[in-house]
Amino acid sequence: MSKTHNFSAGPCILPQEVLKQASKSILNFDNNLSLIEISHRSKPFDYVMNKAKSLVKDLLDIPNGYSILFLQGGASLQFSMIPYNLMKINGSAVYLNTGTWASKAIKEAKKFGNVIIAADSSNSNFSTIPKNYNLPKEFDYFHCTSNNTIYGTQIKEFPSINGVMVCDMSSDIFSRKINIERFDVIYAGAQKNMGPAGTTLVIIKDEILGKTKREIPSMLNYNTHIEKDSMFNTPPVFSIYVSMLTLKWLKNLGGISTIEKENQNKADLLYNEIDNNSLFEGTATKEDRSNMNVCFKLVDKSKETDFNNMCEKAKISGLKGHRSVGGYRASIYNAMPIDSIKVLIDVMHKLENN
Amino acid sequence: MSKTHNFSAGPCILPQEVLKQASKSILNFDNNLSLIEISHRSKPFDYVMNKAKSLVKDLLDIPNGYSILFLQGGASLQFSMIPYNLMKINGSAVYLNTGTWASKAIKEAKKFGNVIIAADSSNSNFSTIPKNYNLPKEFDYFHCTSNNTIYGTQIKEFPSINGVMVCDMSSDIFSRKINIERFDVIYAGAQKNMGPAGTTLVIIKDEILGKTKREIPSMLNYNTHIEKDSMFNTPPVFSIYVSMLTLKWLKNLGGISTIEKENQNKADLLYNEIDNNSLFEGTATKEDRSNMNVCFKLVDKSKETDFNNMCEKAKISGLKGHRSVGGYRASIYNAMPIDSIKVLIDVMHKLENN
Repeated sequence: MSKTHNFSAGPCILPQEVLKQASKSILNFDNNLSLIEISHRSKPFDYVMNKAKSLVKDLLDIPNGYSILFLQGGASLQFSMIPYNLMKINGSAVYLNTGTWASKAIKEAKKFGNVIIAADSSNSNFSTIPKNYNLPKEFDYFHCTSNNTIYGTQIKEFPSINGVMVCDMSSDIFSRKINIERFDVIYAGAQKNMGPAGTTLVIIKDEILGKTKREIPSMLNYNTHIEKDSMFNTPPVFSIYVSMLTLKWLKNLGGISTIEKENQNKADLLYNEIDNNSLFEGTATKEDRSNMNVCFKLVDKSKETDFNNMCEKAKISGLKGHRSVGGYRASIYNAMPIDSIKVLIDVMHKLENN
Repeated sequence: MSKTHNFSAGPCILPQEVLKQASKSILNFDNNLSLIEISHRSKPFDYVMNKAKSLVKDLLDIPNGYSILFLQGGASLQFSMIPYNLMKINGSAVYLNTGTWASKAIKEAKKFGNVIIAADSSNSNFSTIPKNYNLPKEFDYFHCTSNNTIYGTQIKEFPSINGVMVCDMSSDIFSRKINIERFDVIYAGAQKNMGPAGTTLVIIKDEILGKTKREIPSMLNYNTHIEKDSMFNTPPVFSIYVSMLTLKWLKNLGGISTIEKENQNKADLLYNEIDNNSLFEGTATKEDRSNMNVCFKLVDKSKETDFNNMCEKAKISGLKGHRSVGGYRASIYNAMPIDSIKVLIDVMHKLENN
């Protein structure tokens, strides 16, 4: 049976070889025991945790002085952990509001202190990434969201920040080269380019911690997890294991520089069709278009049923746009084969020719 | 190849049929897509979440007025969520200190207010469960730990509390009948009797919430998760799915009353051998012995190498006691077949007869 083309926004497509290996390890990972019934303090899992960490370090070229953590609670828990650990009592933080997730991060930060919005693209329904905004002289940290899954926008050029730089990279980490040294904290829920839902990657510059004088619950304190090497309590074994497999797959493929080129090709192909097909239009400003989430609409909504039926027939799944934008969203993460994109383009093409 | 006998304390043994089904679903769960690459907002996962919840409700006979949540962060995050949600500003809470995990819960609660220790068995290296302690007239909640994995003790008779009753049941939930109406909050990390690491079950009486006047981060606020039906953010899909399968297995087996009898039989069998075998002794006070974690020592430590070798030869795994108690610990959770216990008893017997 031919494979469904999975354009889901997250949890989303993972490499087939990763799924096969994960499936096997559920039955027998070590010494006849399942991956999910061994102690997280056992040598086989210790290997998994260390391997996952070293792959992150290697793929993203992380220098010394940064810790790599696998936590729980998704980016949503990071929205609170960031101010808990970085915003001084009576301090302030600067946020760039580029969409739903940025707005949620702002909401949580406001519970801890003064939040200054550097810029906000809600007026254009978040179809653009604000640029050329001014920052206050003093703030505890600057926070931005690198890719906006819902609106299909992506920061192409990160702002130069004179201070602590925090970035939510949940939906485009491992998709393109980034200069880690420009960031102090990067966090990402696993369920796009890294693995299945259930773990959150945090990359943090050690020297920025311990300065707020806040009393922090142990589980929310980055230092707790740094000291215990992400093993303060039982980690999400399965999610970390599958993330390790996915990162290994990426490394074997050629790493970030290879996948970045592939991602650019895939995105170009699809945006090209959107721009040249008279039936469709993109929803995000061209220069801010995401290479991960391609959002588009039918110019003539009456073609909707036809298009949906054709997609279904072609085994295209997960293409529905988020309710706040409408239309369609093709999420084309690292593991998305170019052939699936060609199938989608073919359907769009046929619709135009009908 | 014969199966390893898995006595690990957690993550721990799961039913074979659950592992088989989980392994299959990693390859194809719905419409040729893997369980871990579909949207958590899709109908197939919606079914999983609802089924998991209804199985919990059914198995534990939970009346209306309680919410059932699947969260992340393990019991360790609950140690902070409990005081965040239940301890008033300038309020107090009463804790029963019966071991390592209770002590950790106490440490976190102290960050929020006044913690009164009702009783503490640390003097006996936590080998007993304190009884007949006095409680203050006023407190925001009482907290206890039903089973102490490390020390092999278990609360057989829960105290009658005139006030809010909170219990960490991480290591014995679903192992015996409990009267839910005597509890206001029950929480449990999945990785013993419910499923793999990565999710935490919380059962909470709705009416006790919203009374502290604290500003609570959204992810730590029980009401956030109640309102969104455990889908405020991407849930740990795999862990919830495997928990659902495990609960289904338990229901098909006959539910709690059946497993409670089996657990009693298994524990009796093993404790009986410990008490009658001249080479071994139990470490916990008899009346407080856990039916989940059986802790014991060799009377004559010089037999250690022999016993360890014999265990290895018999494919017995995970028997090493926690470093704070030493000796051995046989964790015999719901999924542990009686045959594995018989293999262990046989080895103990042979050692005595040598």
